[in-house]
Amino acid sequence: MTQILNTIGRGVEEILLKEDLLRKLERGQPLRVKAGFDPTAPDLHLGHTVLINKMRQFQDLGHEVLFLIGDFTGMIGDPTGKNVTRAPLSKEEVAENAKTYREQIFKILDPDKTQVMFNSDWMAQMDAAALIQLAAKHTVARMLERDDFQKRYSGGRPIAIHEFLYPLIQGYDSVAMRADVELGGTDQKFNLLVGRDLQKVYGQEPQVVLTMPILEGLDGVQKMSKSLDNYIGINEAPNEMFGKIMSISDDLMWRYFELLSFKPLDEINTYKQQIEAGTNPRDIKFELGIEIVARFHDQAAAVAAKNEFIARFQKGAMPEDIEQVTVQSTDGVIPIGHLLKQAGLVASTSDAFRMVKQGAVKIDGERIEDKSMQIAAGTEHVYQVGKRRFAKVIVK
Amino acid sequence: MTQILNTIGRGVEEILLKEDLLRKLERGQPLRVKAGFDPTAPDLHLGHTVLINKMRQFQDLGHEVLFLIGDFTGMIGDPTGKNVTRAPLSKEEVAENAKTYREQIFKILDPDKTQVMFNSDWMAQMDAAALIQLAAKHTVARMLERDDFQKRYSGGRPIAIHEFLYPLIQGYDSVAMRADVELGGTDQKFNLLVGRDLQKVYGQEPQVVLTMPILEGLDGVQKMSKSLDNYIGINEAPNEMFGKIMSISDDLMWRYFELLSFKPLDEINTYKQQIEAGTNPRDIKFELGIEIVARFHDQAAAVAAKNEFIARFQKGAMPEDIEQVTVQSTDGVIPIGHLLKQAGLVASTSDAFRMVKQGAVKIDGERIEDKSMQIAAGTEHVYQVGKRRFAKVIVK
Repeated sequence: MTQILNTIGRGVEEILLKEDLLRKLERGQPLRVKAGFDPTAPDLHLGHTVLINKMRQFQDLGHEVLFLIGDFTGMIGDPTGKNVTRAPLSKEEVAENAKTYREQIFKILDPDKTQVMFNSDWMAQMDAAALIQLAAKHTVARMLERDDFQKRYSGGRPIAIHEFLYPLIQGYDSVAMRADVELGGTDQKFNLLVGRDLQKVYGQEPQVVLTMPILEGLDGVQKMSKSLDNYIGINEAPNEMFGKIMSISDDLMWRYFELLSFKPLDEINTYKQQIEAGTNPRDIKFELGIEIVARFHDQAAAVAAKNEFIARFQKGAMPEDIEQVTVQSTDGVIPIGHLLKQAGLVASTSDAFRMVKQGAVKIDGERIEDKSMQIAAGTEHVYQVGKRRFAKVIVK
Repeated sequence: MTQILNTIGRGVEEILLKEDLLRKLERGQPLRVKAGFDPTAPDLHLGHTVLINKMRQFQDLGHEVLFLIGDFTGMIGDPTGKNVTRAPLSKEEVAENAKTYREQIFKILDPDKTQVMFNSDWMAQMDAAALIQLAAKHTVARMLERDDFQKRYSGGRPIAIHEFLYPLIQGYDSVAMRADVELGGTDQKFNLLVGRDLQKVYGQEPQVVLTMPILEGLDGVQKMSKSLDNYIGINEAPNEMFGKIMSISDDLMWRYFELLSFKPLDEINTYKQQIEAGTNPRDIKFELGIEIVARFHDQAAAVAAKNEFIARFQKGAMPEDIEQVTVQSTDGVIPIGHLLKQAGLVASTSDAFRMVKQGAVKIDGERIEDKSMQIAAGTEHVYQVGKRRFAKVIVK
């Protein structure tokens, strides 16, 4: 049981309540694990897969996944009419989007242990009287405790009354689905707890709420999102996907291992030890890249992408006849800005800083982010600035 | 038009907006005048008739009355389940209650110009999606401005979310009914204005809102209500009804004339002048009593009730052989306390004051309330204290 709890708990932000989860697990019956998704055209990236991976882990433990597409409200659109980009979806569009979801999620999930559900199946039959009954199950004050509502209310920004109904509908889905567990992002915690409350009111055992952190994008700072262009789409080509993974920082690599890899934590710890013992982090990052590319394409494509990456790095990225330069350190180190200037790769140290900031500086093909980086004497690396300036620099 | 506006404006607390009303009236078309009523078993008293009288005045001006029974929410009952006395009404109970309403309201309203409507006719067909659309038309902040909501929210007392939906449903009724005017008590103003807003949103000309004051009960202070036992039920027997009207204060009489009588204001002003000229207010109160009793029974019953009242007053209430006493005034008047003491009807002036305060002192059968009342020299009246102490007192 400890091992099961470790698997379920991996990468998780919060489990509410742990003792409920334990009780449910101890019965030895497959649990109904719910997660809700938007009905708009899905174009999933790795950020979305954090949740889907967790669903997969439940499946591997023998549980059943209920993949809910919240099409009921999607078919309403924006009822205030203010958001013209949220036009109501037709039944056909929902079906089309569901198909696209299936194509993507079954790269991770086991179709035999997955039910794709639509909340319009129960919500479209609900009449106004039943919705009133549902609305009576929660208070205005409680709803206004939700972070974003609280901020908008106290900031004088309008909250339309139907927005108070949506968390209730989402919660009622758990009742209709008889969910044992609901997964969601940390930003969904309030809504997930409404589901827990409503199940109690409707005489069901309350679901366990399990929140997953929001995955950082390639920059390691902001959440992965399409609009920030810091994402890895799960439909991207193997080379692109592999290259993007290779571009992340070493710190972010561990985060991605935790949330995106299915490798056991023991194995990941071994990687950490290897790096401490001198293994190039790039080689460990290769393992992550191969696992992820193989998941969304296949093993052969993953290996090919790796080879292509190395080849590109050796051939395309680095000219064959690289100039060799020696620079002088002070007290055993030299700041990166001085190194680049002395090597003639930049015009000035402030030029160097700007290039680092722009992400245009690489050491042995790996982008660096720290402009105050110090390079040790005795090292020998290929430094690259922009696309075409290269030098092999020896620090004396 | 001025006269029409005077009729419509009589006794009214507020008209929103007057210019809208004028514009609607000027078209010369019959207006659709809505008023909403509770679907629970009706047992109307004169307090309720303030609104119904106003509806009648609209009918007399050629307009159509839409008497709305809000049965939709009544059939839901209390969805929080907390109020066990608000059990859901069945369709049959609603029909039965509507029948009782008809029996009562058609004592005032013209059946030919009255449509009795039920909001379940449109609300029972509304699905959850449509209710969401409706809820999107108003904001949480705006709803929290309603007095009672504001008080409960800031006082930490719960507001269930469905309570925010009820004013919207009431407002939507105006849309479904295409109401030109809605009447309600002053306590309904917020809800009536929601109807106005929603009609605009749904592309209709907004209804004119007309609020009526809450009628005071027999005590002249608290609102007329069954639970305070200060009411006159419209199904009460003629004698009871007449006697209760005769028991009200002179001040309250004018209020009742304004809100309950159909006599023109000119005539009522004439009454006032008559009293100033010396007519006994009791005789004017007779006119009010006769009009009201005749409305709910008939003219013969009203006259009989008056005669019965006089007979009871002369026979039962006043002994045949009343002692005659003369008291002495100072500067032409004598305070009531001194008069009663000198006449031997009370032990002391403070005793007199207490009896007046208890309402136990009558002059010619009419209760007095003013313990600092001065009685003029030259008058001759029957003074009564409690049930059995009488004297005919001549003031010299």
